[in-house]
Amino acid sequence: MSVLIVGSTALDSIKTPGREHPRLLGGSASHAAVAASFFSPARMVGVVGTDFPRRYIQLYERHGIDLAGLQRLPGKTFHWSGEYEANMNNRRTLLTELGVFEQFNPVLPAEFQRAPFVLLANIAPALQHHVLDQVRRPRFVVADTMDLWLNVALPDLMRLLPRLDAFVLNDSEARQLTKTDNLLAALRKIHQFGPRYVVIKQGSHGSVLSGPRGLFICPAYPLRRVVDPTGAGDSFVGAMMGYLAAAKGPVDAHIRRAMVYGSVVASFCCEGFGLERTTKTTRPEIEKRVREIEGMTKF
Amino acid sequence: MSVLIVGSTALDSIKTPGREHPRLLGGSASHAAVAASFFSPARMVGVVGTDFPRRYIQLYERHGIDLAGLQRLPGKTFHWSGEYEANMNNRRTLLTELGVFEQFNPVLPAEFQRAPFVLLANIAPALQHHVLDQVRRPRFVVADTMDLWLNVALPDLMRLLPRLDAFVLNDSEARQLTKTDNLLAALRKIHQFGPRYVVIKQGSHGSVLSGPRGLFICPAYPLRRVVDPTGAGDSFVGAMMGYLAAAKGPVDAHIRRAMVYGSVVASFCCEGFGLERTTKTTRPEIEKRVREIEGMTKF
Repeated sequence: MSVLIVGSTALDSIKTPGREHPRLLGGSASHAAVAASFFSPARMVGVVGTDFPRRYIQLYERHGIDLAGLQRLPGKTFHWSGEYEANMNNRRTLLTELGVFEQFNPVLPAEFQRAPFVLLANIAPALQHHVLDQVRRPRFVVADTMDLWLNVALPDLMRLLPRLDAFVLNDSEARQLTKTDNLLAALRKIHQFGPRYVVIKQGSHGSVLSGPRGLFICPAYPLRRVVDPTGAGDSFVGAMMGYLAAAKGPVDAHIRRAMVYGSVVASFCCEGFGLERTTKTTRPEIEKRVREIEGMTKF
Repeated sequence: MSVLIVGSTALDSIKTPGREHPRLLGGSASHAAVAASFFSPARMVGVVGTDFPRRYIQLYERHGIDLAGLQRLPGKTFHWSGEYEANMNNRRTLLTELGVFEQFNPVLPAEFQRAPFVLLANIAPALQHHVLDQVRRPRFVVADTMDLWLNVALPDLMRLLPRLDAFVLNDSEARQLTKTDNLLAALRKIHQFGPRYVVIKQGSHGSVLSGPRGLFICPAYPLRRVVDPTGAGDSFVGAMMGYLAAAKGPVDAHIRRAMVYGSVVASFCCEGFGLERTTKTTRPEIEKRVREIEGMTKF
């Protein structure tokens, strides 16, 4: 089955100690759609400007991503610029130029409206609502978010949560949203806000799922070298949804393994700038790391 | 088989927001020996002063701990006092009175010298050496440490590492020792210093083992409420050694499961002040949490 992915499509300029990487393909929808494409057909909704490089359209196409929902508007593509510290843990935003993203009004082509799996990747909660208003009887709806929306659009986000099957956020966002440091207390509170499944991402410590079958502690794939973690969270949830859309039977029977695939695709994302490494990844490479994680968790 | 445990025996006064807990039983050897006692006979070497409460001797005795190596010297018992912040993550030392610990010269009773499993719990590396000089052909030697020894006794610690089968330390100590943030790079470096097994503890994120059978990612048992994490690391390694000493066959076949038992006993330790909760723990309670961790890691 196909996955509908709505989010940002951006150009990312990333500074790391000693290197600059201007105008890489980025954005939550780009990372999530490429990650999902290893498992299922991805249908992307986003917006780019007239400056959006042809080679990035070709990259989407190589991954078989359906671009019927990608708008091209007069103006500049969303441009984000950030700087990482030496340990790659702390990121500082240098510049955010919204460009055409400011006018983004996600419109779903008719054939996208019946997508069974819907991923509302990180964009403003109001836009996530707008997408949900257009889809018909989806099987599984997941949303991701970021700290910005907790700060500037919390009421919209709170109204979104009851509309979701699963909500994915990182540990610092969970602390901010629930005002608790305790993982179990935070999960319980977020369930009370609506979603049956809650996934809290913990960076290099992996992620935790809380759902009808209890907790699942999902490890991160340990890496010798982290080149650029930008997009790792988007890759995680994109691969998770791609895997779920390809699996037969109820979501509940597959979501744990789907998260492990998410961890693995996120690990490839971290090994290159932007989508550099992810786009070169092969399914056998992914399977190999999944087997390695199996080996690292058995006791 | 029995486990020999050498470390500190102390009185801990712990302040948390709103409460004070004066002169609890503490010290690395106390926590480790009680944790080990759930699985194997523990033999403890330590030193206390004349002020050491009779009820704490009784506590050791209730756990069947062999106290033939516990010295009682004229003077005061090692007294540590610390304060936790509201989130229980940051600890501040208020006071350290070494007392009789300053003259601690661990002497192993004859029957302790042939202990097959030796745990050098956190004490000065020079004392850890002194203990190793007295044991005869142990099967498995593990040492724990703390940041203090990295700061003031690094050469002693570096000479200790080749004498160990396993070295256990926490993530910030690993960073300090290896000057790298990368977990895999840190593990590789520490192996080069000597030990075949390296365990890096990551607090509420669990721990990671690197050994002849590769990596093992060991989760922490998630807790609804952390009351006092003092001694959790000592409980972890104590339970791990107790479990290993009880298991038949090669260490390599059991060390992963031993770490899971370590995680579980550490979780009980965190649920009370000092040894309050640990000492009330039963083997069935431990087994129940081990099964729960199994359920939380399968995919």
